[in-house]
Amino acid sequence: MASAREARGAQGWPPIAGFRLAGVACGIKASGRPDLAAIVAERPVPTAAVFTRNLVRAAPVEVAAERVRRGRAQAILVNSGNANACTGAQGVRDAERTTGALARALGCEARHVLPASTGVIGQPLDVTAIVSGLPRLVDALDEGGAAAFADAILTTDRGPKLACARFRVGRRDATVLAIAKGAGMIHPNMATTLGFVLTDAPVGAPVLRKALRSATEQTFNRVSVDGDTSTNDTVVAMASGALGGASISADSASARRLEGALTEALSAVALMIVADGEGAEHLVRIEVARAPNDPGALRVARAIATSLLVKTALHGCDPNWGRIVAAAGRAGVRFDPSKVRVRIGDVTVFARGLPVRDDAVEREAAAVMKRAEYTVRVDLGAGTAAAHYTTCDIGHEYVRINADYRS
Amino acid sequence: MASAREARGAQGWPPIAGFRLAGVACGIKASGRPDLAAIVAERPVPTAAVFTRNLVRAAPVEVAAERVRRGRAQAILVNSGNANACTGAQGVRDAERTTGALARALGCEARHVLPASTGVIGQPLDVTAIVSGLPRLVDALDEGGAAAFADAILTTDRGPKLACARFRVGRRDATVLAIAKGAGMIHPNMATTLGFVLTDAPVGAPVLRKALRSATEQTFNRVSVDGDTSTNDTVVAMASGALGGASISADSASARRLEGALTEALSAVALMIVADGEGAEHLVRIEVARAPNDPGALRVARAIATSLLVKTALHGCDPNWGRIVAAAGRAGVRFDPSKVRVRIGDVTVFARGLPVRDDAVEREAAAVMKRAEYTVRVDLGAGTAAAHYTTCDIGHEYVRINADYRS
Repeated sequence: MASAREARGAQGWPPIAGFRLAGVACGIKASGRPDLAAIVAERPVPTAAVFTRNLVRAAPVEVAAERVRRGRAQAILVNSGNANACTGAQGVRDAERTTGALARALGCEARHVLPASTGVIGQPLDVTAIVSGLPRLVDALDEGGAAAFADAILTTDRGPKLACARFRVGRRDATVLAIAKGAGMIHPNMATTLGFVLTDAPVGAPVLRKALRSATEQTFNRVSVDGDTSTNDTVVAMASGALGGASISADSASARRLEGALTEALSAVALMIVADGEGAEHLVRIEVARAPNDPGALRVARAIATSLLVKTALHGCDPNWGRIVAAAGRAGVRFDPSKVRVRIGDVTVFARGLPVRDDAVEREAAAVMKRAEYTVRVDLGAGTAAAHYTTCDIGHEYVRINADYRS
Repeated sequence: MASAREARGAQGWPPIAGFRLAGVACGIKASGRPDLAAIVAERPVPTAAVFTRNLVRAAPVEVAAERVRRGRAQAILVNSGNANACTGAQGVRDAERTTGALARALGCEARHVLPASTGVIGQPLDVTAIVSGLPRLVDALDEGGAAAFADAILTTDRGPKLACARFRVGRRDATVLAIAKGAGMIHPNMATTLGFVLTDAPVGAPVLRKALRSATEQTFNRVSVDGDTSTNDTVVAMASGALGGASISADSASARRLEGALTEALSAVALMIVADGEGAEHLVRIEVARAPNDPGALRVARAIATSLLVKTALHGCDPNWGRIVAAAGRAGVRFDPSKVRVRIGDVTVFARGLPVRDDAVEREAAAVMKRAEYTVRVDLGAGTAAAHYTTCDIGHEYVRINADYRS
């Protein structure tokens, strides 16, 4: 997906029929960078969303979660620079006021406008700036506005994150466009991974919701930077149905292809988020095989991917099998350590419970770890289940950004 | 306890009647530093132990766990410099050979000698060095050998860790001496927190085991450096009964005082371990109050104490209430965020779901965070349960040691 993105260029994203997008600067960010964005459909369309599991949820999450319940939305209003989190009842009123203003400008109902915010937490939202910026935002709405939208939702990201995928519905090709933001490492007082997925496929909210949940579980929920989840994390999917044809029915081949396309597009932007962490130099896929069961495989993969000792070893290009095996061992999953095999790239560094003590092997493994992307494979020899998790290294830059910073 | 330790001086630890200790250098460490140590009782005495919950357990853990089951031991043989972990069947044989050699030297049964190891993992134990060192080790055994023992079990520690406590049994004063090792931050390829507790109190294995488990839960299991648990973690308690008198019965006032004394001594050495982490500049106690229940209180305290974002904020002396509240929010415990209060020292930085937005308050909180030791209090306003967890900051030194190192 990343290479497809490069080839396409920042402005060359395919329009998704039935949606217009825009991004403008309204003055929330002191830098003057774009900070207000919207996605608008022609009418309320099937919409699904998943939100942070953190108990402390930002005001826009509370409002959006309530409004998306009925499975329809016409617009999403996003601001960057302020997360509107830990802002109490005032935060909820502010989210209602800004989305209400967009609804009036569009001539739609406020309950069909979903708010999303990202940025500093604990600061009141600058409602005046947002409301003042809405006329320009609405004027800028365009089918080709994906790049402008993607740019305006960024905070500490190095760059915009978009990916698309296609899938077959009957005799037609449907398109899925995913747009996301999130620097791998959460910035001081910044919150949020945001993801937006648009498709022209004809699909009702229940089928879309099922596909989104499965795709999110396989993508956004399988990447780790520092293990903390934010107050604002949100992924929204909207389907315009502009492609025409009969609605995709549950459990059909088209539904499976929809889920596959959502997974493909969300996976691409999720990996861009991990790779985008300040200071992260390596994107590492942890693959766990022959686990006793699926949840166990995922627990082991997550324990390795989120271990601070493993992540610092990745940073140091140190083929430290001991940290990997020890992380697997504390995941709460039953396996026989004497049957475990660990490979870094294609280099076996640990087999049958023992390290491969060979300088040449260690040099080869260290060479793999110098790559920008590689895979660590852990074979538990305890069953047939498998899972993966993508992580990145943690180094000095992470500490510099997160510790040396003063709020 | 720390101040008591300072006042007493490294050599001034009270002997525990019925035990002799020693520490010598046998050549495992290339530096020539002491690396072989033993605790020896006059006969098999009531003994209890807790071990790492990591599924990947070092050979000495396997052997010691099996031998301590019957509740009696006469000696502990400890080596530093090599953890004898991930060494397969050979590792178990090596632990049996070294403890067997000590048993012969002492004229006791091998099944009454518990092995413990700490250091590099994945390397065969140098059995010859250990066996060659045993005669000198046995010669050096002395009631006043605690300091030599404490020194010989160290790896990356800045210094030895001892603490004592006294408690009343009938008309007599019993003594508890705790000795531990463990640099807060686990060193590359190094494993292990080790703890040893000796008492002259008359107490059987079941009462001793219950007291040790409770004390460990309140101390070693309430400190966090980087969240990883090792292959070798072990805490052993032995009771000589040399004080005389009737054995402490279960659920008696003396049993509670024993548990209190074990907790006091183990707490002191556990805090020394956290404070000893290379690069750690702040020892921070996380206190969670008014949680819905005890396990929930502990989960919230642990989520805050182990959050990488919190720990980097502690390093930067940044009163980042947002990271604390967000960590609490993802602990899986139900509370109403609008009732949460966060204090740093005595400074309230977050109340009723909102940050205290006041520059003077922030400066005061930042000043507290410059201290070597302070407390962060999180009041969930959701019940009456409480829990604590002690943590430290993570900074550049941690990354330097753990990432820049090459195995």
